[in-house]
Amino acid sequence: MPPTSVETTAPLGATSDLRTAVSAVLDDFLRDQSAVLQEVSEDCDPLLDAVRALLAGGKRLRPAFCFWGYHGVAEDLPDAGLLTAAAALELFQAAALIHDDVMDDSDTRRGQPAVHRRFERLHRDAGWDGSDTRFGLAGAVLAGDLCLGWSDELFSRSDLPADALARGRRVFNTMRTQLMGGQYLDMLEQASSTQRGAAGAVDRARRVLTFKSAKYSIEHPLLLGGSLAGAPTDLLADYSRFGLALGEAFQLRDDVLGVFGDPAETGKPAGDDLREGKRTVLVGLAVQNASPAQAAEVDRLLGSPDLDAEGIEVLRAVLTDTGALAGVERLIDQQVEVACSTLDAAELTEPARAALHELVVAATSRRA
Amino acid sequence: MPPTSVETTAPLGATSDLRTAVSAVLDDFLRDQSAVLQEVSEDCDPLLDAVRALLAGGKRLRPAFCFWGYHGVAEDLPDAGLLTAAAALELFQAAALIHDDVMDDSDTRRGQPAVHRRFERLHRDAGWDGSDTRFGLAGAVLAGDLCLGWSDELFSRSDLPADALARGRRVFNTMRTQLMGGQYLDMLEQASSTQRGAAGAVDRARRVLTFKSAKYSIEHPLLLGGSLAGAPTDLLADYSRFGLALGEAFQLRDDVLGVFGDPAETGKPAGDDLREGKRTVLVGLAVQNASPAQAAEVDRLLGSPDLDAEGIEVLRAVLTDTGALAGVERLIDQQVEVACSTLDAAELTEPARAALHELVVAATSRRA
Repeated sequence: MPPTSVETTAPLGATSDLRTAVSAVLDDFLRDQSAVLQEVSEDCDPLLDAVRALLAGGKRLRPAFCFWGYHGVAEDLPDAGLLTAAAALELFQAAALIHDDVMDDSDTRRGQPAVHRRFERLHRDAGWDGSDTRFGLAGAVLAGDLCLGWSDELFSRSDLPADALARGRRVFNTMRTQLMGGQYLDMLEQASSTQRGAAGAVDRARRVLTFKSAKYSIEHPLLLGGSLAGAPTDLLADYSRFGLALGEAFQLRDDVLGVFGDPAETGKPAGDDLREGKRTVLVGLAVQNASPAQAAEVDRLLGSPDLDAEGIEVLRAVLTDTGALAGVERLIDQQVEVACSTLDAAELTEPARAALHELVVAATSRRA
Repeated sequence: MPPTSVETTAPLGATSDLRTAVSAVLDDFLRDQSAVLQEVSEDCDPLLDAVRALLAGGKRLRPAFCFWGYHGVAEDLPDAGLLTAAAALELFQAAALIHDDVMDDSDTRRGQPAVHRRFERLHRDAGWDGSDTRFGLAGAVLAGDLCLGWSDELFSRSDLPADALARGRRVFNTMRTQLMGGQYLDMLEQASSTQRGAAGAVDRARRVLTFKSAKYSIEHPLLLGGSLAGAPTDLLADYSRFGLALGEAFQLRDDVLGVFGDPAETGKPAGDDLREGKRTVLVGLAVQNASPAQAAEVDRLLGSPDLDAEGIEVLRAVLTDTGALAGVERLIDQQVEVACSTLDAAELTEPARAALHELVVAATSRRA
């Protein structure tokens, strides 16, 4: 496999350069896959179109953590092959998002229709037979499956040394399996939380958060980069500690935005998480502190498919008045503090330390 | 990674030995994955239970083609690592089946409830909140995703030489992408066949069959084995010709069984394919040869969710009276003939030639 063009450029410092470079790797790769799918039929084009549109909106956060996890190990490590492995994380995330939206029956993602909604629309616009919902489901299941296979294919294309790739593959494998487990726990918690009761709701929500988000968004990408570079055990342990703390803060910020964020900036409808009945730490704290009247409002409104603006306001008031929102903000501050102090004490290169500090800010102060 | 116990046993000749050996590799692998998922939560057990139950019913056909594709290249090739790579095909197939059943909304697979039905039932039996259908969907999407990731993980665990694995990986990648493309074509054909019309229906159905079944059931497993062993180009070309012909015969037999098979032997309800509206070559031939009255019956009944025994009989009569059934049987005979003559002329080891001849019989004369 010829190395992709971006791998021969100068070392990447700035975040925007890294984003551009990762996008170039993904573009090249999807061009190759387009040829493989054309052999089947040009009718497969909508699958690639859907994947391309979704990938275009990514923040490239995971490749950035992988990149700096790698460059934290030593100065002057060669970049060749690294971007390919890092970009594979974007395809893996795309797979997770596409299937997650199917499972949650979400309408939008990154400000665009969710992939299953794209295929539903294709079906309706063409006036085809049968159910548009079923066709949409199938298109999204298959687009996600393609991304899952492709993430592995792109990772394997990297021309890093074989022993480096073997070390990285172990992280990649754990990431995949535990993310799927975390997603399952999330579904299970939504289904069984009433039965399991308020006691322990926060602990259960934090467990979901760890496996569904913190590990795969930050800890595993960092460990992947570190492993590819042959990082010593101590640094890998620091990456884990930093990544889990920042990952939790990152997801807690996401949860706050999912309820209180501005739809114009998040790209998701107001109160979407409430309508889907997500059992976040924010909700867990509210449920544990709620008065009987407040608990009744949560039972009545959370997860109601026709939740309207008024219902959203009622739930927002409960989340604020029970102190849950303030509690989550405190938790974010604590975890950011853990992440920063771990980073300051870790033995890693100064450019990586500086870049990771910037990423802490980007991941937790964002509004979208 | 320690080699699994089966890899140290004597060379495998008989099909039953091979089946046992592949099952042992899968059991070992799933035991390891169980530990990875336990770290997330023991609540993830149902995911593994579902995968184990599905895998138990497999015929190990794909690993057998991979095994003999490898041993066709030369006598006395070492088996170490081969079974691991071959067993990965069973996990890939499991992923494809689980997601296929979700997309088709099938009730059963291999005589058991389809995976999404298992999770629906788990939800109902536990008396959880929300929709059991949605929970079932999520469980099956995630179980399939796990199998897809695991197929790659198991493949990479093989201790075959790195250059052999790199050659095999190329086949594996093409197989994955083109199967997903083929599945999409299948959904598309079901949705758009009325619009596209009877002319060309057989060609379109054969294209779906090639990419959805023939390649991934037989051609790609054979090519994978051959590539792992470093087969010369001529032999790989013969494997392709043999695999595509036998693969088509294999799927045509499946299509006939899907309509005329005995539910007690196929493990699927009578007429399931007709109820799902599958646009097989059998249906395509019938549609192209149908009188207006017969065409009207097909339009009325094929794909009707509440198709009953009487409707099934009407459709069966159309498939027989139009000569479609006889046409498919002829096509099966022709393709078996191509497969056998290719096999007889190919330069490969005698044990592989004999074993592949046996597999031709097993794949096309079966009743389940």
